[in-house]
Amino acid sequence: MTGAALSASNACPLCLEAGGLVVAQTPLWRVVRVVDANFPAFYRLIWQAHVAEFSQLSEAEAQACMAAVTAIERVLLSALSPTKINLATLGNVVPHLHWHVIARFDWDSHFPNPIWGAALRETSEPAELRLAVPLAELDARVAAALHKLAV
Amino acid sequence: MTGAALSASNACPLCLEAGGLVVAQTPLWRVVRVVDANFPAFYRLIWQAHVAEFSQLSEAEAQACMAAVTAIERVLLSALSPTKINLATLGNVVPHLHWHVIARFDWDSHFPNPIWGAALRETSEPAELRLAVPLAELDARVAAALHKLAV
Repeated sequence: MTGAALSASNACPLCLEAGGLVVAQTPLWRVVRVVDANFPAFYRLIWQAHVAEFSQLSEAEAQACMAAVTAIERVLLSALSPTKINLATLGNVVPHLHWHVIARFDWDSHFPNPIWGAALRETSEPAELRLAVPLAELDARVAAALHKLAV
Repeated sequence: MTGAALSASNACPLCLEAGGLVVAQTPLWRVVRVVDANFPAFYRLIWQAHVAEFSQLSEAEAQACMAAVTAIERVLLSALSPTKINLATLGNVVPHLHWHVIARFDWDSHFPNPIWGAALRETSEPAELRLAVPLAELDARVAAALHKLAV
């Protein structure tokens, strides 16, 4: 890690804290589940090193990063049959590379708006209860898929 | 292309139309510039085949896709020195794989909110005039970077 990266990390919340419930990790990345009542099937891949932009990764790192994002996406698709998967890396508030991987449903509070847009409906029961698989089981499936990548 | 893909394409706007000003294309993808007064440096990579989710691509296709997204990002970073690049593939409204690649500035109408969130300020002059490089020149640089990938 360079001196610049070390000094940046001192003020970066994703360098200081896990940033969520850690589901799996390698020296390159960690994957956490984000706790959001509206979007319960919401994972985040956080690059371990303090890098701001995706294009700062080497080709091998970028491929490893997207392989992990893709593995999460595949688990969400097969376990939950969501209406759509949303992937995004924004980092406007915390410019430390992280990817949002979110299962979206046509019944969720915002669909088809992005989760950052306006809510479109009230949901009568907790979204978590409408998932086909309990979150603990989903975490386990995501972890298993990621561990396969890491070996 | 499978029969299912063909039948889906008949109702899909990204199968029927370019979806923007085409800057570069290959048999796998096309890149268009999106015309948005608030976010002038906004490109979109559209997968040519009618595929909904990123994880439906083969590994080689996914790598080609992200190599092109990365090439666009690098041009935006070097030409414009934006505050941040935002990458996203949502597809809630049009479930045909496309990637948004957007240069964000701390002075833009929404920053640090996502472009899909609430506006935070009025901008006194057109955002396009604040870019370090005119859009025609930016398009040319994006096209040149993408053409290098395609050969």
